[in-house]
Amino acid sequence: MNRFLKYGLSLGIAAVTFSALGNDTIMVTEQQRKNAQTLIDDAISSDLAYSIVESLTTEVGARMAGSEAEARARKWGVDLGNELGFDRVSVEEFNMPFWQRGELSVSLTKPYKQHLHGTALGGGAASKGSIDADVVYFRSIEDLKKVSKGELKGKVAFVDGDILVKSQTGAGYGQANQRRRIGWQHAERAQAQALLVRSVGSDSHRFPHTGMMSSKEGDWASIPVIALSNPDADQIRRLHRLGKPLEVNLTSGAKWQGDVQSGNVILDLIGSERPEEIVLIGGHLDSWDLGTGAVDDGAGVSITTAAAALIAQLPKRPKRTIRVVMFGAEEVGLLGARAYAKRHENELDNHVLATESDFGAGSIWQLNSNVSEQATLLIDEIGHVLSPLGIVRGKSDVKGGGPDIIPLDEKGVPTIRLSQNGMDYFDLHHTPDDTLDKIRPDELAQNVAAYAAAIYLVADSDVEFRKK
Amino acid sequence: MNRFLKYGLSLGIAAVTFSALGNDTIMVTEQQRKNAQTLIDDAISSDLAYSIVESLTTEVGARMAGSEAEARARKWGVDLGNELGFDRVSVEEFNMPFWQRGELSVSLTKPYKQHLHGTALGGGAASKGSIDADVVYFRSIEDLKKVSKGELKGKVAFVDGDILVKSQTGAGYGQANQRRRIGWQHAERAQAQALLVRSVGSDSHRFPHTGMMSSKEGDWASIPVIALSNPDADQIRRLHRLGKPLEVNLTSGAKWQGDVQSGNVILDLIGSERPEEIVLIGGHLDSWDLGTGAVDDGAGVSITTAAAALIAQLPKRPKRTIRVVMFGAEEVGLLGARAYAKRHENELDNHVLATESDFGAGSIWQLNSNVSEQATLLIDEIGHVLSPLGIVRGKSDVKGGGPDIIPLDEKGVPTIRLSQNGMDYFDLHHTPDDTLDKIRPDELAQNVAAYAAAIYLVADSDVEFRKK
Repeated sequence: MNRFLKYGLSLGIAAVTFSALGNDTIMVTEQQRKNAQTLIDDAISSDLAYSIVESLTTEVGARMAGSEAEARARKWGVDLGNELGFDRVSVEEFNMPFWQRGELSVSLTKPYKQHLHGTALGGGAASKGSIDADVVYFRSIEDLKKVSKGELKGKVAFVDGDILVKSQTGAGYGQANQRRRIGWQHAERAQAQALLVRSVGSDSHRFPHTGMMSSKEGDWASIPVIALSNPDADQIRRLHRLGKPLEVNLTSGAKWQGDVQSGNVILDLIGSERPEEIVLIGGHLDSWDLGTGAVDDGAGVSITTAAAALIAQLPKRPKRTIRVVMFGAEEVGLLGARAYAKRHENELDNHVLATESDFGAGSIWQLNSNVSEQATLLIDEIGHVLSPLGIVRGKSDVKGGGPDIIPLDEKGVPTIRLSQNGMDYFDLHHTPDDTLDKIRPDELAQNVAAYAAAIYLVADSDVEFRKK
Repeated sequence: MNRFLKYGLSLGIAAVTFSALGNDTIMVTEQQRKNAQTLIDDAISSDLAYSIVESLTTEVGARMAGSEAEARARKWGVDLGNELGFDRVSVEEFNMPFWQRGELSVSLTKPYKQHLHGTALGGGAASKGSIDADVVYFRSIEDLKKVSKGELKGKVAFVDGDILVKSQTGAGYGQANQRRRIGWQHAERAQAQALLVRSVGSDSHRFPHTGMMSSKEGDWASIPVIALSNPDADQIRRLHRLGKPLEVNLTSGAKWQGDVQSGNVILDLIGSERPEEIVLIGGHLDSWDLGTGAVDDGAGVSITTAAAALIAQLPKRPKRTIRVVMFGAEEVGLLGARAYAKRHENELDNHVLATESDFGAGSIWQLNSNVSEQATLLIDEIGHVLSPLGIVRGKSDVKGGGPDIIPLDEKGVPTIRLSQNGMDYFDLHHTPDDTLDKIRPDELAQNVAAYAAAIYLVADSDVEFRKK
């Protein structure tokens, strides 16, 4: 297919470049290198990952953590694992509290009536009936933090901010996200009836971006908290600058419900020499309810599952076990990741390495790591193998392997990171627009190639990844 | 300002190019050419048009034909005309029937529950209660046309199609639009309970595109007709291909209400020599209710009003009257345009030329005309004046001056067309996403420059535009 031609060409060039390197420490055998190249070639000419994410988004659809749809996704994951020939397929269930969005209506009523495109933020409360209130404008979360107790009694606060800067790395998201995460704590302290926030997104489309708020020592917001789309926030900012008094009407049916079941789906390729040693990859199976969870994180599930499935086609299993985890309930607080770390806490010393794909479906452009000195040399060599895919070897002191890897990282499991180009990720993130059409099959295939080659070489090596 | 630098540079170059032409028929005097250049320079360095569309979208907002908001827009237009120094400002009101969207809910219920992003099409009816029905899939409007009477009794029809091809000219819209315009007539004949159609749009965002349906000999649809976003239509297509039986639930509160008032706002610069001769430009003041009508057609209103306002700054009025019409109720069937043509039917012989800006806010790239032989030579010269703005002289036999010009065209009023780049127009067209942030101030200013220079030269000429 034409779309893969560019990879084909650059692979040829790279082979020459690499053989000229004359590296002292050869940590990858000729056979391993050949196998890695086979995996790359197979991945680039395969539509397996795309067909997986197409199936997940089409046949399961949106799959909110703890919902009936997420349970269907687990069944889908088990069926997929069996179909693709994994050696061991299992589900590890856990309980979680269920937050439900309910119906929302939010409109400007002064200076004139205009429907606003908003969505409830995760963990928010229902309105007590219908709220009609003056809007108090805050230019930033820093301004909102300065309110005194009771200062907003009877009002609705609106926290502005700016459109998220587009970046390859996602820089700025964490900072911008403060208004989503903790804005409610200050609005509530000031006794506001509700909080509106500018969505944390890099797009200018009329989509609000949902997402979870932070609890405060286990307590969740007792007021409705609503994210507005960037164009709606722009409009409020302009009206505010014109000195127009603003009023809103809103009703929200968001609420916490009782405990429900979620779970992690685990697909293993059992290692041929040291089956107890685990190289863990994965993505998260749950999605927000607004879109169909294509880039977040159908992509990650499909990339890592397809990569492992290609490795399973090699004549022999790698020495170590390769484990694909489809984590449940990531969006609502890494609940699946924490359940996994707890359940496997006595085996974490055997987790050689962990990494997750959870930053969309864009091409991988950088390989970072945080592993032992010896393993760093192996990662350097893997960097050479991946280089023809347009991937640069980044740094060897970059912590983190993805959100669901945090609890493992905290327990000392070594991590690498195959960083995707996130330039457009926050255009779609947590919006209704996160749908299959946003995924480019060629970029998805490049991801599979990188994961397959890298994870194979890690799993088939004898190197110790843990730092001393 | 930096963003205008490119125009400034190319203007300098063009002045040289033009003086070397040695055209035989000089229809533009040196003073007129100088004035036209002044208008271009002023327009490029002015933010007047942007400030007009910012004000309209921010301070009036969405303005559905016949609504209270459209009436506020007329008042806004009158105030603007007076503020900008037009010689005569008037409103010509007319009555019209009012169609209201009401509340809509549409979801897949089989093979699983998924909210669909849909919107009622204009002229559609309410559902009788809540509809739960099997979906019958049609690949195209041609397939739907083949249904026999009663064949869809109790069902809901879905008419697929394709994502609109992006083009500079908007080619393909009319053809694709058949499913929106007349699909209901076939669905109704086959006794379907409702009709779903793939939106007519070139985007892959989760926005449905609304728009008016055609009446059939004055009758409107008696069933709900709902446009779905392209990603939702993609999903239905994929599920259909998998052989999954589909069911939907939908309720729609759309309805026709009694007669209401709309109107055209008319701003005149009265001609200094032949005030009875009218050069008509304009845009439409109403918008669909989903967005705030920035590109459709706040842009056209702002471009043509700003162009005339710049001409008003010249030391002397042009010979002929320049009339800016802000048409009412365009979206629901050119009602303002028809009211204008009827009310002024005895003066149409005095309408020298008419053209409308109603294709978004992209740069103008082509100048077409359909005028007398002599006037064609003038338009050719105007083409040379506009060329530094990146505008090519197109053809002299292209009919049409914009939707609201159709009734005038039918009565023999000559037309020209300053064609905008519509490559992205149908991404936004009739969606909630038609908001101010989509307009580039530099592109808007280029439009104003072209309109100001062209219309000034037409209005200050003695040329007869009517064909014999």
